[in-house]
Amino acid sequence: MSLMLEEIRQQPEAVARVLENEAEKALRLAREIKGRNISYLILAARGTSDNAATFGKYLFEIANGLPCALAAPSAYTHYHARLKLQNAMVLGISQSGASPDVVQVLKHARKQGALTACITNAPNSPLAHASEHILLCDAGPEKSVAATKTYTTSLMNLYMISACLHDDQELLNRLHQVPGWMEAALSLEPEIMQRVERYRYMDECVVISRGLNSATSAEMALKMAETCYLVAEPYSAADFLHGPVAIVYEGFPCFLIAPQGHTYNFMKDLAETLESKHAETIILSHEEEILSTATVPFRFPLELPEIITPIVYILFGQLFACHLAEAKGHNPDIPRGLRKVTRTI
Amino acid sequence: MSLMLEEIRQQPEAVARVLENEAEKALRLAREIKGRNISYLILAARGTSDNAATFGKYLFEIANGLPCALAAPSAYTHYHARLKLQNAMVLGISQSGASPDVVQVLKHARKQGALTACITNAPNSPLAHASEHILLCDAGPEKSVAATKTYTTSLMNLYMISACLHDDQELLNRLHQVPGWMEAALSLEPEIMQRVERYRYMDECVVISRGLNSATSAEMALKMAETCYLVAEPYSAADFLHGPVAIVYEGFPCFLIAPQGHTYNFMKDLAETLESKHAETIILSHEEEILSTATVPFRFPLELPEIITPIVYILFGQLFACHLAEAKGHNPDIPRGLRKVTRTI
Repeated sequence: MSLMLEEIRQQPEAVARVLENEAEKALRLAREIKGRNISYLILAARGTSDNAATFGKYLFEIANGLPCALAAPSAYTHYHARLKLQNAMVLGISQSGASPDVVQVLKHARKQGALTACITNAPNSPLAHASEHILLCDAGPEKSVAATKTYTTSLMNLYMISACLHDDQELLNRLHQVPGWMEAALSLEPEIMQRVERYRYMDECVVISRGLNSATSAEMALKMAETCYLVAEPYSAADFLHGPVAIVYEGFPCFLIAPQGHTYNFMKDLAETLESKHAETIILSHEEEILSTATVPFRFPLELPEIITPIVYILFGQLFACHLAEAKGHNPDIPRGLRKVTRTI
Repeated sequence: MSLMLEEIRQQPEAVARVLENEAEKALRLAREIKGRNISYLILAARGTSDNAATFGKYLFEIANGLPCALAAPSAYTHYHARLKLQNAMVLGISQSGASPDVVQVLKHARKQGALTACITNAPNSPLAHASEHILLCDAGPEKSVAATKTYTTSLMNLYMISACLHDDQELLNRLHQVPGWMEAALSLEPEIMQRVERYRYMDECVVISRGLNSATSAEMALKMAETCYLVAEPYSAADFLHGPVAIVYEGFPCFLIAPQGHTYNFMKDLAETLESKHAETIILSHEEEILSTATVPFRFPLELPEIITPIVYILFGQLFACHLAEAKGHNPDIPRGLRKVTRTI
């Protein structure tokens, strides 16, 4: 079995550890955010962690009304911008805690008087040393180059900070159900293994979602780029309609992540548009109506609270990328040209 | 001649009109930003205008030290988030001023006490009515579906606001040279027309830059998606190294936008990495060293101040997309499945 697959399957346990070990730290951070009258957040990250940051942006804006920006690290590292960061919190996310650009954003922010925090799998990393608050992924060593369990454990930390920020006991309770819901996602594996054959010779595709699951489509696309060497482009469904929809030809593969909830109708309309263009649609949803438009439907077995879907639905994307890589004859554990820790400035 | 090509060539005149007509309004807006003690910006846009917003983020952070976020419109329109926006300025960008999601972001922001402004080509649009400050593209009717002159005129407005914000007379003077520099970019057209033939059967590629020109690569990729039906994925050079570089095979087409300046060395290192992987690199730069690594070099005839390169270098991307569309047998003026005004919620 590939390391990647092994680590995908470890996720229910890993997120349970975060719930157990990080709750107190999330609460302390939330208290300081409130106490210091923080008015907006800046999230700094790269690669998979940057997709976790995108999820964080939607979560904190929707659930907490807290405006969020994603940092452009080069503004700090290459242009030496001096940002005015009073009343800002800057949160770095990096599994290795070693990417110099993310570390530099945090150092600059702390000097400018921002509240600083990080989510990392490496408690002794430069990123942890640069931050006032440290939340851990508790994921154990991640040996596969393609990150999986450090993504979902980063998300779990973000959920906990958000829930503590507005004392949302209901969300905290639901988080305890995530390990079980992840098992339901893992139960899709046999169906995925059977279906990936069809995409053995696919060399480009798009992955589309909207809102809270924009991060899910970005992360699924990144996993496919890394392990299957596909040009897999993620899109917000709205941005896709503002131009890129022109690329769709008959049989063009479009993956849609479409859980129930606030953006479901928008996704359903898009699915119908794509059906009328004879695109090949691969749709993950619990809803029969959108699944009935799909070329290849994947029915999620349970109805989940919308806010929880990103941390559970991504397991489908990870499994799909991992098995498609194998169908294509690649070893998902050794993507060509990549190392586990990428040090960009 | 296609409408798109006609409008590409109108850009030196169009940006000159912005300099003439909008200077006073940019100054008034800058004064209010300072007077109201604005601590961060939120930019709201879709499609091409969203690429202009990305440029704005880098510009305001680097030149003005003002943290910027890109709005996620669905947070406002689908999730009805109530963002705390005191001390924020929210700037909408939309050539038509008609996309309901961008309008709704502005309406919400105004209600929450934010300073509101817009950049649009339509002075009587819903977006203009929703905003306290209105800056115009002065681009004349844009008939081609693929936006070109409304992109660069939006950028010109952003430059002027930024320059007024820190009384940068040097930048203001340089802006008056942009029309002439754009003529230099247009002089690349014969070479582009000759070279696009080579990419007649290309159906996927990446477009890479870093820092201030991240928007340039995103906008070039979008133009190629819309008019050439390519899966053209834009990347920050740093994000590209954190995973997607795995997709590069021998002959894989990588467009690099690599002007002189703060990120040049990073781009040069990437170009060398890609050369060692035998990728096909198409590089736009003024610098001989990076051009010498290219499969197909495009030498920009002048050395420009780095900060100005985004508004000038994009003309290369527009011309390339337009002529490649024709080489592929497509009419760039009628991208399949698109209309000029896209109304997403």
